[in-house]
Amino acid sequence: MPSQYKLTYFDLTGLGEPIRFLLHYGGINFVDQRITKDQWPNLKPSTPLGQLPILEVDGRVLYQSVAVARYVATQVGLTGKTDLENWEIDAAVDTVEDFRVKIAAWFFEANPAKKQQLKQALDNEVLPFLLTKLDTFANNNGGYLAANKLTWADLFFAAIVDFTTYIYGADFIAKYPNLVRVRSNVTSIPAIRAWIARRPKDNWY
Amino acid sequence: MPSQYKLTYFDLTGLGEPIRFLLHYGGINFVDQRITKDQWPNLKPSTPLGQLPILEVDGRVLYQSVAVARYVATQVGLTGKTDLENWEIDAAVDTVEDFRVKIAAWFFEANPAKKQQLKQALDNEVLPFLLTKLDTFANNNGGYLAANKLTWADLFFAAIVDFTTYIYGADFIAKYPNLVRVRSNVTSIPAIRAWIARRPKDNWY
Repeated sequence: MPSQYKLTYFDLTGLGEPIRFLLHYGGINFVDQRITKDQWPNLKPSTPLGQLPILEVDGRVLYQSVAVARYVATQVGLTGKTDLENWEIDAAVDTVEDFRVKIAAWFFEANPAKKQQLKQALDNEVLPFLLTKLDTFANNNGGYLAANKLTWADLFFAAIVDFTTYIYGADFIAKYPNLVRVRSNVTSIPAIRAWIARRPKDNWY
Repeated sequence: MPSQYKLTYFDLTGLGEPIRFLLHYGGINFVDQRITKDQWPNLKPSTPLGQLPILEVDGRVLYQSVAVARYVATQVGLTGKTDLENWEIDAAVDTVEDFRVKIAAWFFEANPAKKQQLKQALDNEVLPFLLTKLDTFANNNGGYLAANKLTWADLFFAAIVDFTTYIYGADFIAKYPNLVRVRSNVTSIPAIRAWIARRPKDNWY
């Protein structure tokens, strides 16, 4: 009997979307449980780390979004063939996380002066530096971030870019041709394209 | 012929120490290249992401410290037997990273008022919450963080606690008996104990 999957996350792409991309890529049926702002305070204490997403697999509750994505990647055949390929994939994912965390830090900063300062650092330093590095990875790997083939790093990247573009308010990878290629290599996968076409639109913030 | 390893990091435990623990655990000979503050500006542009640590393996340069630690863990037999065990290990490591990042954010904050605010959040919220969670993991896994056995999550935890205790200035895990047990399970491994006894003392900050 196939495993039963239930993803619980906010009604948003965010940190849940890489996992959704991976599940859809693998053709895995799953319950896509979407929590509203009103529901979250009641649910929060019952989650393992007070955070979403969580993924229930045959009743076991998995947490920590990147670890969950790596686990799902192993189930759908999107990891590397060798330990070194898996290092390369992990390093690309962690580099995506590096810019995701900086965009989130800017977005959630309450102090206006500090927020402006974080935005300048993002635009003038963080994004140009990290995106140039990732663009080079993608150029070296034929339009993928690692291992010269489609891996979960690419799905992770495309989903995170999708979400961060929504909060950033502009397509910040547009001038990085190899990153545009990575995104396109992911969003043109039929199962992903179909999911993007029918999924709820982000309307959280 | 065995692989040739060279770790390049600052003359400090920090993000290099989990990798050093793993290499020593595995009995892997490696060059422990320690960079001084004076040397770093010249070296930085030649590193893949402008960051240390990097680990050269037979001339290939690996970067992103957690990804490197996971890679070394695969070489020394400290990963899980199943995909779910590896998820559990990764989730524990990411939870250690969650508190490490918050301690670092406090430590490096330049604004005195903000720094005090971050310290209060650390002491009253972040550390009690995350350390209680990790202590529960350790209790459930017989003195290890995951998979009911020694894994790289434990070595990662012990090395990061070592470093963060140095910058925090107090043994903040002392009141969590299961975390003390995890640390002791790691530091009593002969190769790790011998390394700790002979390694350079942190004197960076």
